[in-house]
Amino acid sequence: MTDPVRIAVTGAAGQIGYALLFRIASGAMLGKDQPIELKLLEIPPAMDALRGVVMEVEDCAFPLVRNVVTTDQPEVAFEGADVAMLVGSRPRGPGMERKDLLEANGAIFTQQGKALNDHAAKHVKVLVVGNPANTNCLIAQNNAPDLDPANFTAMTKLDHNRAIAQLARQVGGVVEDIDGLAIWGNHSSTMFPDLIGATVKGKPALENVSQSWYEDEYIPSIQQRGAAIIAARGSSSAASAANAAVEHVREWIAGSDAVTSMGIRSSGQYGIEEGVIFSYPVTVSNGAYNVAENRELNDFARSKIETTEVELIKERDAVAHLL
Amino acid sequence: MTDPVRIAVTGAAGQIGYALLFRIASGAMLGKDQPIELKLLEIPPAMDALRGVVMEVEDCAFPLVRNVVTTDQPEVAFEGADVAMLVGSRPRGPGMERKDLLEANGAIFTQQGKALNDHAAKHVKVLVVGNPANTNCLIAQNNAPDLDPANFTAMTKLDHNRAIAQLARQVGGVVEDIDGLAIWGNHSSTMFPDLIGATVKGKPALENVSQSWYEDEYIPSIQQRGAAIIAARGSSSAASAANAAVEHVREWIAGSDAVTSMGIRSSGQYGIEEGVIFSYPVTVSNGAYNVAENRELNDFARSKIETTEVELIKERDAVAHLL
Repeated sequence: MTDPVRIAVTGAAGQIGYALLFRIASGAMLGKDQPIELKLLEIPPAMDALRGVVMEVEDCAFPLVRNVVTTDQPEVAFEGADVAMLVGSRPRGPGMERKDLLEANGAIFTQQGKALNDHAAKHVKVLVVGNPANTNCLIAQNNAPDLDPANFTAMTKLDHNRAIAQLARQVGGVVEDIDGLAIWGNHSSTMFPDLIGATVKGKPALENVSQSWYEDEYIPSIQQRGAAIIAARGSSSAASAANAAVEHVREWIAGSDAVTSMGIRSSGQYGIEEGVIFSYPVTVSNGAYNVAENRELNDFARSKIETTEVELIKERDAVAHLL
Repeated sequence: MTDPVRIAVTGAAGQIGYALLFRIASGAMLGKDQPIELKLLEIPPAMDALRGVVMEVEDCAFPLVRNVVTTDQPEVAFEGADVAMLVGSRPRGPGMERKDLLEANGAIFTQQGKALNDHAAKHVKVLVVGNPANTNCLIAQNNAPDLDPANFTAMTKLDHNRAIAQLARQVGGVVEDIDGLAIWGNHSSTMFPDLIGATVKGKPALENVSQSWYEDEYIPSIQQRGAAIIAARGSSSAASAANAAVEHVREWIAGSDAVTSMGIRSSGQYGIEEGVIFSYPVTVSNGAYNVAENRELNDFARSKIETTEVELIKERDAVAHLL
């Protein structure tokens, strides 16, 4: 067997962390032949709960799990990490403005960015799940000057999967019928689910649905899906977010010929402000993602993409002192 | 692709159900090429939460999930079921005696047994996870006279995995070093984790550990592991129980050369009372489990096995009116 891959997970005792660890440990992310070491970070008040989670991981007798480290120190969690999944973040409390939220998370992701810079493997693949994911990722990336900016990504795979599932349902098909669909921009209510470049069984998606359904029902329902889950379940998406995180990392490492969506540092592709963490349509090969080129975009799409870009620039400016 | 396998899950919106569904749906139980239909049962007050869970399943865009049915009627959930995972049960409330618990669950599993009998596929594989699992299974099996009693099993795989993990830890090895270990009897604090027939790297397990550690530390720690998890996590084992359920069904269908543990209807093997649902060491081939024969048992083991058998007979007698 090969050496274990070291996987750091923050917020490991939270709801997403709990849904995530067992799928990673069972081999769903890196395959059935890849031993792993889990390096789990939590805040001090959650260390008891984390101990219980680790007992349960142990109780699964997963053959792939070679070691589990628990800590409340980012420097320990990220030591030698090959993969870092930054799930933990400060949730929005009552009366908290988005600005307060950005600020509270700014402190966390500044510290984690520095710790990644100083302790993780130079090839570390970082996925930020904790919200506001794109800007948290921006902060971490900017605080890790010795790491390749391409190592930092934010998760829009959950939005991507939601968009595929809802399109498949609308056209009465199955998810494999859908290709080329992508999420642009921020993992927030401004995200743009792009059907212009998507196909259903090889035919343009927009020939299968009406523009009014697309604009007035589909896009809002993807954008507001998180709130709908909370309303039904009484708690926020956990297992589906964990699943998206597993798929994001799996595809980043194993590759994906199909178009998927990742929040990555913009190099100005499609005219987007350079440096912000922006979700693009990407394909993945040899452990590297590549932004899909020459996607057709109409005025409607360009206007939606601009809206989400403007939001990301505002978020960036609000945390400029941390960059 | 083959036809979907119909998998019924009860208590689908509970903690174990939530941990279980996404692993099933991702292909962890029946493989990456087996489409599935999920048939999810909940009690009426949990139907909203179940709707939220199903939204999250949808949000994963799992290619294998062909259909999801939700219902509060066992007859609907079990219609045509190929696999039935009976996870939901009445938990023990404050001041509730074990007798009250058996009674409350008796009603549930009587109804579910009849519904399985009348609506499930004749080859249905039933796994009871909800506690008291062995006796709930006994009730369901006895209320399904048209189904082969061998179709009914109770889960002791979680105990089995715990026993493997803790032995591996004690000997400083990994879980693959352990072979032949088994859980006998009831999924309760009387269960007997059998190291007499177990090996570590091919050598008798009991040559690697002391009899006093085995009797005074190991057995109690396996028997009381559930309570230890609750103390640490603040809630009961969910992901590790779900993992064990996935493995139980996977091995039952795909086979297992290695010895595992399943609660099955005793035909009197090893002198156990016929008809009770008793956990035995088994191997599995061609979709059928076979009790391991001629296991060596010493007086200590026989005394432990008798204790757990006596408990199961008492449980059976307490629900005799339901059988």
